[in-house]
Amino acid sequence: MSVDTTPRACSIAAALTILGEKWSLLVVRELALGVNRFDEIQRNTGAPRDILSNRLRRLEETGVLERRPYQERPLRHSYHLTESGNELRPILLTLSQWGEKWTPQVNIGDWVHTCGEIVDVQHTCKACGGEVTGLDLRFRSRATSAAA
Amino acid sequence: MSVDTTPRACSIAAALTILGEKWSLLVVRELALGVNRFDEIQRNTGAPRDILSNRLRRLEETGVLERRPYQERPLRHSYHLTESGNELRPILLTLSQWGEKWTPQVNIGDWVHTCGEIVDVQHTCKACGGEVTGLDLRFRSRATSAAA
Repeated sequence: MSVDTTPRACSIAAALTILGEKWSLLVVRELALGVNRFDEIQRNTGAPRDILSNRLRRLEETGVLERRPYQERPLRHSYHLTESGNELRPILLTLSQWGEKWTPQVNIGDWVHTCGEIVDVQHTCKACGGEVTGLDLRFRSRATSAAA
Repeated sequence: MSVDTTPRACSIAAALTILGEKWSLLVVRELALGVNRFDEIQRNTGAPRDILSNRLRRLEETGVLERRPYQERPLRHSYHLTESGNELRPILLTLSQWGEKWTPQVNIGDWVHTCGEIVDVQHTCKACGGEVTGLDLRFRSRATSAAA
């Protein structure tokens, strides 16, 4: 399906057109944690059922998740991250780290790496090996004719 | 101010309570690009003016941005990322990379690192030095009594 973009048509805007809404990313969180059934996703996110149905449908249409039947009578589906959905995990992780530092609340758990430690992620540039903080990035237009 | 949390009260949910909406992250994108005035932010995001005012106010209340006067008569403010706002840049970056790969559209530009190359970020665990893909993480509850 086509994706609407905003006036500055960058890849952030395009990603947010799919994901730019709290419930969608919380659905991805649940699937990433291995919670795959509607009622459990509903309980763990707190999303109203009609909104959750709508978000699940949109995430399926945009290829972030896929449905698989797990029961025949009545037919019921579970929800699973696709390859693109799985690649959202670093976004959840950076969101989690930001939330951990800047939002005033008690967290119920930690993200643990396979090494056994609570994960603290370093972002480095594959080209130069230096750290990427975000402050060291600039946006370079590809063609002036594309600018608004 | 207090931050509402969802049934699974993790730091992702808390971060999304502040940011979980397309316009808010697009506002942060504009500020990160050095666009600081209401009319320019409005034009580059495409957000309706009343919604944009609301999001700017909320981002100020939650400490993501601050207002600075730049004109006296009439009084006008520009908007600037705080320390917490600047630390959202890695989230924009990971969103950008995901959008670049998975959303079908033409992008108008690239994020360039100080080294001069288009940035491709590697995520590594500070504890073990291994790559973090997200698939190698699990969520560990801190206390069973906190679970819903």
